[in-house]
Amino acid sequence: MKGKIGVLGAGSWGTALSIVLADKGHSVNLWGRNQEHIESLRCTRENSKYLPNAVLSQNINMYTDICDCIKGCSIIVLAVSSQGIRETLEKIKGYVSKEQIFVNVSKGIENNSLLRISQIVNDYYPDNHYVALSGPSHAEEVCKGIPTTIVSASKSRYAAEYVQDIFITNKLRVYTNPDVVGVELGGSLKNVIALGAGISDGLGYGDNAKAALMTRGIREIARLGEAMGANISTFAGLTGIGDLIVTCTSMHSRNRRCGIQLGQGKSLKEAVASIGMVVEGVYTTKAAYELSKKFKIEMPITNEIYKILYDGCSAKESVSNLMLRSKTHEIEEVMEDFIDSW
Amino acid sequence: MKGKIGVLGAGSWGTALSIVLADKGHSVNLWGRNQEHIESLRCTRENSKYLPNAVLSQNINMYTDICDCIKGCSIIVLAVSSQGIRETLEKIKGYVSKEQIFVNVSKGIENNSLLRISQIVNDYYPDNHYVALSGPSHAEEVCKGIPTTIVSASKSRYAAEYVQDIFITNKLRVYTNPDVVGVELGGSLKNVIALGAGISDGLGYGDNAKAALMTRGIREIARLGEAMGANISTFAGLTGIGDLIVTCTSMHSRNRRCGIQLGQGKSLKEAVASIGMVVEGVYTTKAAYELSKKFKIEMPITNEIYKILYDGCSAKESVSNLMLRSKTHEIEEVMEDFIDSW
Repeated sequence: MKGKIGVLGAGSWGTALSIVLADKGHSVNLWGRNQEHIESLRCTRENSKYLPNAVLSQNINMYTDICDCIKGCSIIVLAVSSQGIRETLEKIKGYVSKEQIFVNVSKGIENNSLLRISQIVNDYYPDNHYVALSGPSHAEEVCKGIPTTIVSASKSRYAAEYVQDIFITNKLRVYTNPDVVGVELGGSLKNVIALGAGISDGLGYGDNAKAALMTRGIREIARLGEAMGANISTFAGLTGIGDLIVTCTSMHSRNRRCGIQLGQGKSLKEAVASIGMVVEGVYTTKAAYELSKKFKIEMPITNEIYKILYDGCSAKESVSNLMLRSKTHEIEEVMEDFIDSW
Repeated sequence: MKGKIGVLGAGSWGTALSIVLADKGHSVNLWGRNQEHIESLRCTRENSKYLPNAVLSQNINMYTDICDCIKGCSIIVLAVSSQGIRETLEKIKGYVSKEQIFVNVSKGIENNSLLRISQIVNDYYPDNHYVALSGPSHAEEVCKGIPTTIVSASKSRYAAEYVQDIFITNKLRVYTNPDVVGVELGGSLKNVIALGAGISDGLGYGDNAKAALMTRGIREIARLGEAMGANISTFAGLTGIGDLIVTCTSMHSRNRRCGIQLGQGKSLKEAVASIGMVVEGVYTTKAAYELSKKFKIEMPITNEIYKILYDGCSAKESVSNLMLRSKTHEIEEVMEDFIDSW
């Protein structure tokens, strides 16, 4: 199946997906906000800034005009930062036709509104199909052809399978899932836990502590997710625990690297600046913290990360709080529902 | 709470737990099968062979006579390899009193009989309390005082809490769980997946592929566990996904290190020899393979690892089989139960 696909956002993930799609024979239109960056991609066929050593084939056409970029495309891929989605949707207002499918690959929740990306897109384009494409998929590995799995999630089975067909290759395996809420929340909220995992690493804690943090992390994500209407099974899958694992353990993860610097004593501003790209988890922590209040869900890890990022609390003290919070005779969290029968 | 504890097995984990218990003020009797090794521990107060740089305090008494070792102990810790449990229990026959609590810290399933350790202990000592102590806890980190969480699982709440009280410190956090079957299976079966994770690393696959393998790994473990009577929630906890994460991502893991060498093309014999300690996963793969047949549970990863270890299949081909097994339009595994409503 060949088609024309518009990719909005020329960061590492947008570029990597453009390369995968173009190599498969699709015609790709790639738009980026920064004119100079796009000119550089066009001339050098490389994205030395965000994805060094990857080559952009001639099947990829660069655009600085976003409306030109999406013209005639069957799919519009949203690969900008989650806080930039609304602005991007504003820019294409009046240029989107009902047949075009939105595929969002950014992972975040809009601050203040606390909306998921599907909700924002639905506000603007309620008649278009929407797919969340998410999973354990660092761009650096995907564009090198290292085997990767990913999930195409949509309320519309037709749209989920259409996108699956467009993106699937021998190396990039695409599965479908009907649970958009769960897939969006898993992909977004894991970045909060990844900041925590990085902080733990930065403080010099070990693999044992980090595994405990991740285990509890997916649990508090699932608790909030369930309250927000997600299917709890999704959090046991690729976009839940799978994406959490890759983000908390890989050095490709910006969120983890940002956390490491926080754990080593850098300020939030310094840590974010050193990454040089958007660190989604910093925004998501704020949204997750507010969602936990709104839905009255206990999220001890999110709570501590919020205190480190926004209340100036010490990373060391916060991680200690998490590790030492157990009282004597505390039953393991996952078994709390079964304590009566013991 | 102070008491006398007998630790059977002077490998890395038995030694690390002895150090933790002794530092807490308990009197520890440590037995090892190898007389020369025990003499060396007694003289040097170090276990340079299995746990370099850790110091054994004077609260730890070394024994070469196993029956002397357990005399007067409230707890008998089984820290030998899982295939050596039966031989160890034979040795103490007639010297165990009903009040002594068995705490097993080995992670495996007896080959041929396919029995879990609790079942073997129950065959010999049906009147004694049994606790499985398991979780993401590399010995190297525990004896350095790096924060670690662990689970005390027993059918007897009294025994689980007694052991929790004995082992808990500021750094080693102990939770209780009534699900012995789940805790034993999680701890054992994750070593099979860790071999696979190592193989994937050894083949040069990336973090994305490994995260996918781990996500599917815990799922097949849970499927078998449920069929064998475990509570499925346990696999979402510290002894399930927590222990799986630490074993698949840490260089402390012997099973992962063994897998890396297999992925790099070494033979099983060479890979195991290079580790220099028991690689539990090699035995567990055989047991898990047979259990999957017995309980008629599909375990694709276990199946491929078995073929690599015991049928001489190529690691590269097996991992490809796993990654490429999806057909077009395959729904994500975790959601298979919900496909009808889509």
